[in-house]
Amino acid sequence: MLTADGCRTRRLRFLDRLKPTRPVVLADPLHLRYLCGFHVDTISSSADFGGLLVIRPDGHSTLFYDHKLPKTGGLAHADERTPLTWYTGQEPETGTRRLVLRAAAEAHGGRIHDSLTDPLAPQVFAILSEMRRRKDPDEIALLKTCMNACAAGHAWGRVNIRPGVTELEVYAGVATAVYAALGRWAVVYGDFTVSPGSTKRGGPPTPHVLEAGELFILDYSVVVQGYRSDFTNTLCIGGRPTPQQQQLMDRSLRALAAGAQELRAGVPCQRAYDAMRTAFGDMADSFTTHGGHGLGLAHPEPPYIVRHSTETLVAGDVVTLEPGLYVDGVGGLRIEHNFLITDTGYEQLSHHTTTLV
Amino acid sequence: MLTADGCRTRRLRFLDRLKPTRPVVLADPLHLRYLCGFHVDTISSSADFGGLLVIRPDGHSTLFYDHKLPKTGGLAHADERTPLTWYTGQEPETGTRRLVLRAAAEAHGGRIHDSLTDPLAPQVFAILSEMRRRKDPDEIALLKTCMNACAAGHAWGRVNIRPGVTELEVYAGVATAVYAALGRWAVVYGDFTVSPGSTKRGGPPTPHVLEAGELFILDYSVVVQGYRSDFTNTLCIGGRPTPQQQQLMDRSLRALAAGAQELRAGVPCQRAYDAMRTAFGDMADSFTTHGGHGLGLAHPEPPYIVRHSTETLVAGDVVTLEPGLYVDGVGGLRIEHNFLITDTGYEQLSHHTTTLV
Repeated sequence: MLTADGCRTRRLRFLDRLKPTRPVVLADPLHLRYLCGFHVDTISSSADFGGLLVIRPDGHSTLFYDHKLPKTGGLAHADERTPLTWYTGQEPETGTRRLVLRAAAEAHGGRIHDSLTDPLAPQVFAILSEMRRRKDPDEIALLKTCMNACAAGHAWGRVNIRPGVTELEVYAGVATAVYAALGRWAVVYGDFTVSPGSTKRGGPPTPHVLEAGELFILDYSVVVQGYRSDFTNTLCIGGRPTPQQQQLMDRSLRALAAGAQELRAGVPCQRAYDAMRTAFGDMADSFTTHGGHGLGLAHPEPPYIVRHSTETLVAGDVVTLEPGLYVDGVGGLRIEHNFLITDTGYEQLSHHTTTLV
Repeated sequence: MLTADGCRTRRLRFLDRLKPTRPVVLADPLHLRYLCGFHVDTISSSADFGGLLVIRPDGHSTLFYDHKLPKTGGLAHADERTPLTWYTGQEPETGTRRLVLRAAAEAHGGRIHDSLTDPLAPQVFAILSEMRRRKDPDEIALLKTCMNACAAGHAWGRVNIRPGVTELEVYAGVATAVYAALGRWAVVYGDFTVSPGSTKRGGPPTPHVLEAGELFILDYSVVVQGYRSDFTNTLCIGGRPTPQQQQLMDRSLRALAAGAQELRAGVPCQRAYDAMRTAFGDMADSFTTHGGHGLGLAHPEPPYIVRHSTETLVAGDVVTLEPGLYVDGVGGLRIEHNFLITDTGYEQLSHHTTTLV
């Protein structure tokens, strides 16, 4: 979980950049997660409801939130926390649930500075988007929690993904392993599907029954307090890959290693992308997906490791590299690892196995 | 899924009530689900992103949406659908994802009329909240889809909830049965926990290992396109309830039947609540939770069947009745069914078994 110190530091850094003369009022779920650790679980009846964070120029912060949310409000870090009641269980609602925060917004100037139409929104988003790239220690710790649980799901997959199982059963099994590793439920989303090649490179699980020889792309994220992992392996159903399928894996492993070798603060993302593309050799035209991206409270997010990159890596970036090849008649294959960028290189955050069998 | 006709009818009904002279711009996820069937799956990387619906006074509607969303945009019903691109996979993002809809909002007056701070929001919410109570045929059909999948999870639970299994495993098993029934994944949320009595009447699944004699409250919702079921059974772990536990069930069944007997358009909710309370007899003081509530795009929502009800049932309301008793030393028990209110009575929408064994 994010720490009180981490959240306070981020709020002060934000104020230092924005230099507001009046209280700043924020409601974007990503900003509330980042600046005070306030997260509403999307697997709850409160999925569409939230909070309001008021940060005064002197640094004092107040979180207003819907009192019916899961324990989220109590977990958040702000100088003051004010639950607002719309339903007691004994009387009808006292007003529309969605508007329970309205009075608090009006009492603080009537504007929400990160709402879609607010004049200040572009500046607020620009500052926070740039800040979010340089992950703090509490964010890294939370990302590692996601990564560890994600790895448990991949381990389950290696043993249990086989002919006769449906993609939906794979999803359920992976999710169950993730819950067991976390000790609670969580959102698990991503690609849980076989790829025949260029026509389908991912997608949610379907009732399709797995057949020997198919390539199953297991590319998913585990979300904890809004932070998420995102790594991939591809398995050959039935465990007997053809030489052509093995070639897809061998080249992708080579591309991943080549890309990782370029990861270091100060290096242009283009260089990592080009290294992967070059490593694919004469198969590079089948590398049609993006090469990687930033990861944290959302995905994909800056920086982008793509064909036409423009960004430069900074220390604290957490990025994925996800080379893949999609060849009709052979199958689609993708592997992916997550990396924390440092001044001298990187720390690899994901440790799952990337092999076809 | 909602139908194009159903969505158009609701938009026209809304215009007829609001009588705007300029285009109305809406962004609330619940309103977009209701008025054009636009829903962003919360188990996806797009969980926090959305769309913008512009409805002109003449009835013409345009949906603007983030092009990276799951197939949601394509499924929605509006006269025009305009995807907006922020990321191609080949270049870095062209702007902050969250602000991709900003230009569309500005081109239509710069206001979002159902945003927290907009002057029109209370009126918009009041109209739509009242409208939402009278469910249309396409909404009922979608709710029945949720109910059928939810019933499949309850059936799994009857067979598989037993000593030695963890609450998290129950959640995973129920969810798997729901996915199989739906043919795809979905959000499944609710109470998946044993109740010792008054101290814990619900909650998310934990690593707790079920023990013979405990009462397991299985009270959950299945969400499809934002619509949801919500019904409950309580099982005695190990299948040998004590006479006191059986009494909780017998009284609750009696209360549910008594409450249902009052369900009919024009009847005050208070009457249904009081009927349940009276049926509990000398155990009524252990009935500490609410008696029921409206159900649809959110839960709980109007009307509320509570100790101090003020609302009156209308034809088209979909409500739950959920009597329960929570007695320390015996356990907590709750059962629940869902009902569509008609002019002459009700149609019961949930058909799961409500017994302890």
